[in-house]
Amino acid sequence: MSLLDLINEPNDIKNIPEDQLKDLAREIRRFLVRKVSNTGGHLASNLGAVELTMALHLFLTFPEDKLIFDVGHQSYTHKLLTGRKGGFDRLRQFGGMSGFPNRKESPCDPVNSGHASTSISIADGIVKARDLKGEDYKVVAVIGDGALSGGMAFEALNNAGRLKSNLIIVLNDNKMSISENVGGMAAYLGKIRTSSKYTGLKMNIEEKLKNLPYMGEGIVKRIKTSKASIKSLFVPGMLFENMGITYIGPIDGHNIPLMLNAFEAAGQSKTPVLVHVITKKGKGYAPAEHDPASFHGVEPFDTSTGEKKAEKSTKSYTDIFSDTMLGIGESNANVVAITAAMADGTGLKAWSKRFPDRFFDVGIAEEHAVTFAAGMAAGGLHPVVAVYSTFLQRSFDQLIHDVALNFLPVTVCVDRAGIVGCDGETHQGIFDLSYLSSIPGFAVMAPKNAYEFEDMLVFSCSYNGPSAIRYPRAKAYYGCKTDNPIVLGKAEVLHEGKKAAIIAVGKMVKVLDGVLKELTDEGYDLTFVNARFINPIDFELIDRLCDTHEIIITAEENVKRGGFGEAVALHMLENRKNNRFLNISLPDSFLTHGNPRDIRDSIGFDPESIKKKIKAILP
Amino acid sequence: MSLLDLINEPNDIKNIPEDQLKDLAREIRRFLVRKVSNTGGHLASNLGAVELTMALHLFLTFPEDKLIFDVGHQSYTHKLLTGRKGGFDRLRQFGGMSGFPNRKESPCDPVNSGHASTSISIADGIVKARDLKGEDYKVVAVIGDGALSGGMAFEALNNAGRLKSNLIIVLNDNKMSISENVGGMAAYLGKIRTSSKYTGLKMNIEEKLKNLPYMGEGIVKRIKTSKASIKSLFVPGMLFENMGITYIGPIDGHNIPLMLNAFEAAGQSKTPVLVHVITKKGKGYAPAEHDPASFHGVEPFDTSTGEKKAEKSTKSYTDIFSDTMLGIGESNANVVAITAAMADGTGLKAWSKRFPDRFFDVGIAEEHAVTFAAGMAAGGLHPVVAVYSTFLQRSFDQLIHDVALNFLPVTVCVDRAGIVGCDGETHQGIFDLSYLSSIPGFAVMAPKNAYEFEDMLVFSCSYNGPSAIRYPRAKAYYGCKTDNPIVLGKAEVLHEGKKAAIIAVGKMVKVLDGVLKELTDEGYDLTFVNARFINPIDFELIDRLCDTHEIIITAEENVKRGGFGEAVALHMLENRKNNRFLNISLPDSFLTHGNPRDIRDSIGFDPESIKKKIKAILP
Repeated sequence: MSLLDLINEPNDIKNIPEDQLKDLAREIRRFLVRKVSNTGGHLASNLGAVELTMALHLFLTFPEDKLIFDVGHQSYTHKLLTGRKGGFDRLRQFGGMSGFPNRKESPCDPVNSGHASTSISIADGIVKARDLKGEDYKVVAVIGDGALSGGMAFEALNNAGRLKSNLIIVLNDNKMSISENVGGMAAYLGKIRTSSKYTGLKMNIEEKLKNLPYMGEGIVKRIKTSKASIKSLFVPGMLFENMGITYIGPIDGHNIPLMLNAFEAAGQSKTPVLVHVITKKGKGYAPAEHDPASFHGVEPFDTSTGEKKAEKSTKSYTDIFSDTMLGIGESNANVVAITAAMADGTGLKAWSKRFPDRFFDVGIAEEHAVTFAAGMAAGGLHPVVAVYSTFLQRSFDQLIHDVALNFLPVTVCVDRAGIVGCDGETHQGIFDLSYLSSIPGFAVMAPKNAYEFEDMLVFSCSYNGPSAIRYPRAKAYYGCKTDNPIVLGKAEVLHEGKKAAIIAVGKMVKVLDGVLKELTDEGYDLTFVNARFINPIDFELIDRLCDTHEIIITAEENVKRGGFGEAVALHMLENRKNNRFLNISLPDSFLTHGNPRDIRDSIGFDPESIKKKIKAILP
Repeated sequence: MSLLDLINEPNDIKNIPEDQLKDLAREIRRFLVRKVSNTGGHLASNLGAVELTMALHLFLTFPEDKLIFDVGHQSYTHKLLTGRKGGFDRLRQFGGMSGFPNRKESPCDPVNSGHASTSISIADGIVKARDLKGEDYKVVAVIGDGALSGGMAFEALNNAGRLKSNLIIVLNDNKMSISENVGGMAAYLGKIRTSSKYTGLKMNIEEKLKNLPYMGEGIVKRIKTSKASIKSLFVPGMLFENMGITYIGPIDGHNIPLMLNAFEAAGQSKTPVLVHVITKKGKGYAPAEHDPASFHGVEPFDTSTGEKKAEKSTKSYTDIFSDTMLGIGESNANVVAITAAMADGTGLKAWSKRFPDRFFDVGIAEEHAVTFAAGMAAGGLHPVVAVYSTFLQRSFDQLIHDVALNFLPVTVCVDRAGIVGCDGETHQGIFDLSYLSSIPGFAVMAPKNAYEFEDMLVFSCSYNGPSAIRYPRAKAYYGCKTDNPIVLGKAEVLHEGKKAAIIAVGKMVKVLDGVLKELTDEGYDLTFVNARFINPIDFELIDRLCDTHEIIITAEENVKRGGFGEAVALHMLENRKNNRFLNISLPDSFLTHGNPRDIRDSIGFDPESIKKKIKAILP
């Protein structure tokens, strides 16, 4: 019988004898590698946080105490220890367990999450609520060193210093965000880790803590009675101390008794405490230790070699972006590229190698990324900011205030637009058409296929104003090839038919092309238009289509509210175009995780359902 | 002849003899007080930055060098010194000079701005552009200690440390944001200011710099040759030093030669330097020195007393919010209030005095404000976040990811929604209906009058999910009183008429009420509906209106794209309601500064123009 068999409910870990905790950690790692190799998921960060999570579970009582993981992709061990072992067979699958904390799954998850740098704000709030309601439980936020570069984490730290109450912030320092960390804070943490004081200090703490009873009473007394002595004991974190937060560390994040003692000590403080633990991303699984960036989020893989089971056959839109940018970079020295800790994910890795001087990874800091781009544009360059649709939400004000208001030549490449799949509700890129289109003067495009994406990139890099190109997490489509040049605000007619005109946005061209082929076989001959621009919209063409067709149909993979269809509908109604109208779009709701196909099926957004909807309004 | 008469072009200040600079500063202060007392504007911050701006103008050459003011409300002396003296007669007036930096006004303004915490990101970008293009000019960002609490300033500092190039960041530390500063960073700066080292160190620097030739060659050599000696000379800013930014300070921000020497020294560095200057907000004008918060942004006032010329007669919506909240706070102990450095502006001052334990000013940190609220809601409270519409743009992702996704009971009170007037393009609250309505499950309301605002506040504080109430910067309206209770997603019919139905959002009810009275006199009898909810929309009522009227008219003070009208239009078209349709909304563009009436006139959004538009489609 394995130790994991004894873990079926929250707090069961407390029944495991102390001398078997290392064995349990090993079992957990084996379990995670096996399960994630089947389903895909976040691996390296979870392997790195096994002992940390175990120590927290020994320290806390669930569900009374509140544990908030920043982003939440590293919460697998937490799920395992809170009775969700069975969920791993369908991890990130439609209807299965989420890859992130989820309130619906367990009362041990205080909030759903998926974006970075929010955990300390949430924890600040829960602490305040606890105190105002006169309740008594522990609150712990676990944040990675990567997420600490996000501005709102700093805002929360800045405010945490004022909480006159216990809050434990665990800085899970694995020296990486998704890829390598950047910036002054990272350098500072590096200094703490490598300073000559580190080893000595660590030894010092270890010895002191080891000699204390389990509850760490000696150290607790010190913290309570003598501020000076804490400072002398824990000097490396003066940056945090300067902000009013007691610093403990750095501590080996794979040593459970050591961490537990630190947590116990921190738990006695009347003010917020930051416990700095050093972990190794990918710990305990050789392929992930050697290449943690590739094992950050993975597709199903072979556990013995770490090789992906399904090898990529065709290029993704991200690959097209990557390749096209290289060509643009060769011909235009003013083009620079910016990413926010996503060089791999956005495809800018190749650019960063070819043009290292013109590449900027600002870390997890989407706000700065966009305004930094605005500054470079004001200085005469043409920046291309590559970011995922869902993370660009964090730059909304910067897109308005710094880029659009100044009408600066910045290209925003919005990757992972539309349904992204297994990462689920926090990662679906289903709002960007709405929020980008409402910004005055922002040209918003969506390519129908690989060729058009290239053309749009070239167009945008020579366009003297702000523009955005949104494209999906998908294999690039090579159908529907045309050679119409990209013209601001102009759509293209792919086929002139009769009765009904379908205007499809971006990837919906591919979907509708399939649907239309079937409809053609059934005897229909419909007009087919590729919208190209979501802002400005080609109303001239739409007017003509309205005048020559009974029915207008729009299709977009974005929520309905604020999308392309609404803008077309308003224009039509105001201009007395009373054609029958159908808008194919996503429902105004959050979409769960799972295979994109399953998600589409569940909301009637699959080709078959779309075809039915279209046929229903055809005469 | 005054010294100011000699200042007509950029760089003219360099012709003023050094011994007359103090006189010039006095003249500038007198000029600013006189002009702002007539036009209204930002006063205290500008009075505090007179010598700082003069020193920067002696140091820099315009327009070649780039000076970026954070927010930009403190740029009046910069405008004065760059040939815009004549503009002050029409400061913030329609067609007159903007109250913020503006590229259209002068090549000495690198970017338009108005929101906080963006300047270092812009400066980082301009520095990079300069270096990549092989150009040679200076870049200076001036940021207040208040704006330093904004997360994106931290993101930019975190990245500035990596710039291997000169950048000067001037920390203009007046110990305040708009009201008093909060948080760990503020406490840290306070420690620097008041530490025993401060006086000694300041003296030390003063003496050293005073003994140096004007160019500060000695100190320059030190910076170049000996990193250790700089550290020993300037020890207080270790927090910045830890992030890789050289710190110089603190320096008296009203001593021009001292600052100039510091800037010259900083200008020789091969890496970013932060120069910490201490200024007094309101400096040189007694009423503003004594009450800088009230003199942050002012209406026209009497220069001898500082008293406002026009006294408030009726309550504003902000006053209604302030009063109503007190009542809610008495009856519901779970309600807490949060603001981001806007206790005065949002009307939460009274609450902060009555319920100090349930009041949270997080500083200029809108992202944290919203997620902190989400945390408190997750902990069982009902937070009310009061923030201006334009600043809430910065919390867009937090509203989605932390509040809506978790369906938490958070009320967002969106003040200054719609056209705000003299602050202009960066402050108009004209996008909130679009961005809020696209968030799934967010109830979005707008009250037609003071009574309804009270009811909506009470409703939202008992509503068990996320909601927002948007209201204008305006006197509260007391007309159109009804007693229909607020029901989620339900509009109210104010008058049942014939042929045309007008559905007005929020403050547009008042406008349309006036227009409709005139139309009634002219013999029309139109149906009049108060939308109340922008999300969810009362489509049941709209269907009925469509079936019983020829014409549907929607009215909202928000850009067209993503607004209420578009959502209504899509619903109508999809449901084969082919009524004639008119949407009254703002154009999809940025709106300049000026009296709101002038702005409305210029875009055909005044009652007379609206009436014309309506009559044009009436049968």
